[in-house]
Amino acid sequence: MQQAPILLTPGPLTTSLATRTAMLTDWGSWDGSFNALTASVCADLLSIANGKTHHCCIPLQGSGTFAVEAALGTLVPRTGKILVLENGAYGQRMSKIARAIGRDLAVLSWPDGVAVDAQAVKAKLQSDPTITQIGLIHCETATGLLNPLPEIARIANDAGCELIVDAMSSFGALDIDVEALNLCAVIAASGKCLEGVPGMGFVIAKTAAIALAHGNSPSLALDLADQFEYLQRTGQWRFTPPTHVVAALRAALDQYLAEGGRATRLARYISNAKVLIERLKSAGLKLFLNEKLQAPIILTFHAPAHPDYQFAAFYAAMRERGFVLYPGKLTQIETFRVGCIGAIDSAQLEQAAHAIIDVLTQLNWLTPAAEKNHA
Amino acid sequence: MQQAPILLTPGPLTTSLATRTAMLTDWGSWDGSFNALTASVCADLLSIANGKTHHCCIPLQGSGTFAVEAALGTLVPRTGKILVLENGAYGQRMSKIARAIGRDLAVLSWPDGVAVDAQAVKAKLQSDPTITQIGLIHCETATGLLNPLPEIARIANDAGCELIVDAMSSFGALDIDVEALNLCAVIAASGKCLEGVPGMGFVIAKTAAIALAHGNSPSLALDLADQFEYLQRTGQWRFTPPTHVVAALRAALDQYLAEGGRATRLARYISNAKVLIERLKSAGLKLFLNEKLQAPIILTFHAPAHPDYQFAAFYAAMRERGFVLYPGKLTQIETFRVGCIGAIDSAQLEQAAHAIIDVLTQLNWLTPAAEKNHA
Ligand SMILES: Cc1ncc(COP(=O)(O)O)c(C=O)c1O
Ligand SMILES: Cc1ncc(COP(=O)(O)O)c(C=O)c1O
Repeated sequence: MQQAPILLTPGPLTTSLATRTAMLTDWGSWDGSFNALTASVCADLLSIANGKTHHCCIPLQGSGTFAVEAALGTLVPRTGKILVLENGAYGQRMSKIARAIGRDLAVLSWPDGVAVDAQAVKAKLQSDPTITQIGLIHCETATGLLNPLPEIARIANDAGCELIVDAMSSFGALDIDVEALNLCAVIAASGKCLEGVPGMGFVIAKTAAIALAHGNSPSLALDLADQFEYLQRTGQWRFTPPTHVVAALRAALDQYLAEGGRATRLARYISNAKVLIERLKSAGLKLFLNEKLQAPIILTFHAPAHPDYQFAAFYAAMRERGFVLYPGKLTQIETFRVGCIGAIDSAQLEQAAHAIIDVLTQLNWLTPAAEKNHA
Repeated sequence: MQQAPILLTPGPLTTSLATRTAMLTDWGSWDGSFNALTASVCADLLSIANGKTHHCCIPLQGSGTFAVEAALGTLVPRTGKILVLENGAYGQRMSKIARAIGRDLAVLSWPDGVAVDAQAVKAKLQSDPTITQIGLIHCETATGLLNPLPEIARIANDAGCELIVDAMSSFGALDIDVEALNLCAVIAASGKCLEGVPGMGFVIAKTAAIALAHGNSPSLALDLADQFEYLQRTGQWRFTPPTHVVAALRAALDQYLAEGGRATRLARYISNAKVLIERLKSAGLKLFLNEKLQAPIILTFHAPAHPDYQFAAFYAAMRERGFVLYPGKLTQIETFRVGCIGAIDSAQLEQAAHAIIDVLTQLNWLTPAAEKNHA
């Protein structure tokens, strides 16, 4: 086994040994013990979202994007129209999916780092009554920005539109109450704030909406109505499940609940983010976002202003010290990202912050002013 | 860790401890070490199929069905027409996929247990010149039947049609030479004869066909042309890869090569199948297929003729003894299936055969004649 670095990336992320150890057992996908595993995972995911009353949990093989495409293909009727709210790369990807699967699409866009504006959404819904669904990215992982989910949910409900939320990087840490907000669907995956390994997504969807969705999907593999019908009838996944990934998620959920659930998980991530922001700011590095919009999931920093700065060299030096950073995802501005999620706590983030400052100092890329601040 | 039973199922199957242990490390999906892992896995898969000259290997997140749908959606042009050759549940599933994604479809069907007939395929291609692709299931896992791949390939080539082969349950064990047979695409997955864990599929496709396929796919997640273009450009998967599943497949391939490659793997499966067939036949159980058509992958047996026979009770008693059987997949006839693949050898199959006979004898479901044979 190679010595693994600490992953400061928003999935795949650093998992606990207990989670990985759960993958040492093989499971028969047709066996009652595996059906029980699937059922218990789905029940816990539903509880986390407060979805026990009107929602169901549909697991899906593949990465998070597969679950986003499945949700759009299944829940936006062939004659429907989805309004996608874009303020970063994952919002843009949702629009791209809607186009690929041939759904009628309207888009509202804001620049990277600007939150979705509820009033503009309201105006758009008033001006275009053909919109049936709205697509929102909860935490836009491209920047780390937290969009105003409750406000958008209220506006969607007032307009009689269904809201589909990509909560890939926030589910399990930030508050999402599908019942209180009357959400049509929330999409997430195993390998993010739940701290499982990557390989499956899931959709928490209104049971009534799924029941009406048969025949919508332009895909067999990504048909959530079919997937759910089969799961209910047989207790099994329609096609071979990623058994070891499911077992790892079960173990990760056990630890999640033992740790104290969502509030405790969030508190840990908040303290992770706080350490990083304080340390890097005092070294002169600037957070890309206005702090009020920052979710404690992933932080985007402006690259040092030094003309010689290159992410690749920075990455390699950090890798050498046992940390994996994430590149920026903005097209116009040079940035780098640091994830706060995974089985890590503020002690590791202290070390990471120390390593970042040390590496940049040695590479001579911190400005003298910043060095003074740091000293 | 629970004590795992031996899986006599054609994926998920019993994997080696070395394969599972490879999942104890976390990998960053953006890291050079993970890109190298992906590249080495793809290179080995390509070699196994003898595809180094004109083919490429495109890995895909999800189960095998996702890879089948991706291959059809990417490689059958929107104006194309695919002829699917059905003689079991997986052939029928391929037709269902073609319908779901809106591709023009022709079907030739044979009953379960009857091989695809090359002459009928030839006649069909002559009578319908609009057919551009043919879809064949190499080993029809629903029965265990081996279809005549070389003959169908010859006919496809003569007619100028592209052949797409679902080799899910045969790849890595049975001979498939994509270069010699001039195959358009071969589809398989991590958790079958390669003895990895489930969670990813892959398509070995003609590089020239993929280059022409941009814009065909009715899906973003399942677009193999896009997936390959991104992989070539960046060394990375387009969306989060199932990192631990890929690492397990790398370990499984290391063992595959160390064991002696395809011929040795096939020999082990043949000896597994032989033990089972001999033991169960001598106890009066009948193989569903004509032995000439039987692949050494999964065996279908007629259920004992006893009127009280119930698969569920049989399954439970076998499970109790540490073996997981597979239910039959035929609609008309009562059968059960036993997989010969996975990290198991003839000693385990001896034990399994012994347990099957013992359980059926205790349940009083073997006919007296059969019991005499066995004694
Ligand atoms: C908000 C959001 N949506 C979608 C995705 C896509 O998930 P995946 O890479 O697993 O396909 C991500 C991945 O980080 C994400 O953060
Ligand atoms: C021939 C064949 N095709 C397709 C599949 C579907 O694969 P999956 O269950 O991984 O989706 C299987 C699964 O056993 C198979 O044997």
